[in-house]
Amino acid sequence: MNPTVWHHLNLCPQGDPGESVADAALAVRDGTIVWLGERAALPAEYATWPREDLAGAWVTPGLVDCHTHLVYGGQRADEFAMRLAGASYEEIARKGGGIVSTVRATRAASEDALYAAAAARLEPLLAEGVTAIEIKSGYGLDLASERKTLRVARRLGERYPVSVYTTFLGAHALPPEFAGRADDYIDEVCERMLPALADEGLVDAVDVFCERIGFSLAQSERVFDAAARRNLPVKMHAEQLSLSGGAALAARYRALSADHLEFLDEAGVIAMKDAGTVAVLLPGAYYFIRETQLPPLDLLRRHDVPIAISTDCNPGTSPATSLLLMMNMAATLFRMTVPEALQGVTRHAAHALGRADVHGTLAVGRRADFAVWSVETLAELAYTMGRPLCARVVRGGTTVYERPAYGLCTHESPFGR
Amino acid sequence: MNPTVWHHLNLCPQGDPGESVADAALAVRDGTIVWLGERAALPAEYATWPREDLAGAWVTPGLVDCHTHLVYGGQRADEFAMRLAGASYEEIARKGGGIVSTVRATRAASEDALYAAAAARLEPLLAEGVTAIEIKSGYGLDLASERKTLRVARRLGERYPVSVYTTFLGAHALPPEFAGRADDYIDEVCERMLPALADEGLVDAVDVFCERIGFSLAQSERVFDAAARRNLPVKMHAEQLSLSGGAALAARYRALSADHLEFLDEAGVIAMKDAGTVAVLLPGAYYFIRETQLPPLDLLRRHDVPIAISTDCNPGTSPATSLLLMMNMAATLFRMTVPEALQGVTRHAAHALGRADVHGTLAVGRRADFAVWSVETLAELAYTMGRPLCARVVRGGTTVYERPAYGLCTHESPFGR
Ligand SMILES: [Zn+2]
Ligand SMILES: [Zn+2]
Repeated sequence: MNPTVWHHLNLCPQGDPGESVADAALAVRDGTIVWLGERAALPAEYATWPREDLAGAWVTPGLVDCHTHLVYGGQRADEFAMRLAGASYEEIARKGGGIVSTVRATRAASEDALYAAAAARLEPLLAEGVTAIEIKSGYGLDLASERKTLRVARRLGERYPVSVYTTFLGAHALPPEFAGRADDYIDEVCERMLPALADEGLVDAVDVFCERIGFSLAQSERVFDAAARRNLPVKMHAEQLSLSGGAALAARYRALSADHLEFLDEAGVIAMKDAGTVAVLLPGAYYFIRETQLPPLDLLRRHDVPIAISTDCNPGTSPATSLLLMMNMAATLFRMTVPEALQGVTRHAAHALGRADVHGTLAVGRRADFAVWSVETLAELAYTMGRPLCARVVRGGTTVYERPAYGLCTHESPFGR
Repeated sequence: MNPTVWHHLNLCPQGDPGESVADAALAVRDGTIVWLGERAALPAEYATWPREDLAGAWVTPGLVDCHTHLVYGGQRADEFAMRLAGASYEEIARKGGGIVSTVRATRAASEDALYAAAAARLEPLLAEGVTAIEIKSGYGLDLASERKTLRVARRLGERYPVSVYTTFLGAHALPPEFAGRADDYIDEVCERMLPALADEGLVDAVDVFCERIGFSLAQSERVFDAAARRNLPVKMHAEQLSLSGGAALAARYRALSADHLEFLDEAGVIAMKDAGTVAVLLPGAYYFIRETQLPPLDLLRRHDVPIAISTDCNPGTSPATSLLLMMNMAATLFRMTVPEALQGVTRHAAHALGRADVHGTLAVGRRADFAVWSVETLAELAYTMGRPLCARVVRGGTTVYERPAYGLCTHESPFGR
């Protein structure tokens, strides 16, 4: 591929606005960054390369959405409406609502239908600069349906310009056919589903929903052991609704991340720090379920645990497809700073995927995956609510997305424009 | 203009999903609705008209954003970042932040620069189905700068396919040159600015920020009297940070709306009901300033006061350009129902502009201003966060906006798509 010098840009290579380079340039060859720095210092050897002028825009690493449940069937908007209208959980359950309805719809959906629905949720994320995304299974809850989900995730990564990392979350909820037999279901997850799906190359990591309403510490540990037997990294939905000690357990297994963490305590924070486990915070879920327990930001800061932010895109607790909105919520609701929020969706999110070597920062030798922002200051990324700020997405040195101009039709109306 | 029958659609003519018509049709001639109802009942006289097939989409009235400060200079994102990083209000004020910085930047900006900045904020609203918007002055705070602001608002309405209603908010804050002389500034507003701008046709309504940190009841009343002398309708920023009795005063002047209202009491609610004053709630500001006092939804419901929702788009307390996100916040934070949220951005918002005769509902004889939504159920409008759900906007019978397909570039990357 042709070499290119990207110039007339402000560069934030590490996701920290404090380490930005004004009036910078980036030289890219064969999809890889070969030089970056102040434009005035561009070495002579790149001076004759073709140039792309970014008109003074800001450039950050491509965004990383490190925790999503993007692939599922059905919709839960009507359930949302019912709940607001005063329906009780029992009434909603009686009308077939709740996670069971998503499991039923996911099982019933064809792979093509699941793909189309997930693609419609993926596109707004890509149009916001996302170049890497994690996608979990966990609404199939049987081998065939979990396989179907993970195949859809892989297909999204083949057809869209985004790196997809799959996570097997068979231990997301107890499927109805195993009611009262959670340990039997964990057998199924560990002995049948995980090995089969791993053999098929569908699993990059393994996750467990460890919670009073999910799976116990002992059950989570069995899933982690099964993952270890296949040399698969693990992560955990932990301490969202109560303190269970899940994060500490995850740390013992050197988990990539522990996610949610509203009820995390200092012992868990220290265990995570020692294990190199990233704290993934999900402000969309915090907001949507009207949680009031804030995650322990000060403890995480004090112990220097890297903090990532993600959409948690899912139909029950975070129907969010905007990582910028999550930055705004992280800042507004969690009082995270702008540098924390931006690193939370770049370098720290890449750490949470175990792929900080490829994603989340821009440096010589790294792949040229970056987002171009039509902003004066990077603080706008966390400050605005609902504005399409991403002008262009570059992946492996190639422009894969450009924001269309506002698509005003030009017909005349009898009332004038 | 050619007559058209819009068909293969689900119609929500009043903004209440409970009053929807499945498999409906809309006949439009000369920009006006001449018939609407079940497609099967379409009268023979329209059967030969040209048709537009909406492929099963949902149609609602065009959205109405009834409270915005869309036109201003400068940006406050850096101030947001400083505050998150721990800067005090004093430090921010010392560095030139706060509303004074917006006033300074607005005064300094050329009309063209103000127009360009406001247009960039308007476009995402229009792409979400907004066909009518209110725009306030209030960051100029001198005659020339308020004039410039209102001229920009008018120009937006001429150049974009949206009905713009201007509001003179000279009494938004005390300009620095009047420090300690609030009554003198109110003289200036009432005796010089308002009459001059009204004479120039720049003022559709008059607003006051009535608050401990704004203007007093007595000062607000003087502004309302000045508006009455010009036969201009009034509205008020009221009861946002404390209960001041502003809403009751506004009701005495038969205000179109009282806005914010977190601290409103029952006496104020009853006064509003009796006066026909709409309650405009601004969940983006509630969220952004981390308010905890909820507006009195139950009182407003009990006394049957119409409730509108708006972005309050402004740089200090609600940098929001998504009315759908405001619906989500109204539902999530205020527990408004989906029908309340949708009527809040359609018929009740039109009432708040005093233009329920033109905007906010679809009926025979009304202008054909509508939004076309690619959703299965209208509840998705309030449920999703950050998804571009509006497929098309029709104004006066003419398509003025169509959502572009996700703009994936087709170049090949060395890493594959
Ligand atoms: Zn999750
Ligand atoms: Zn306002």
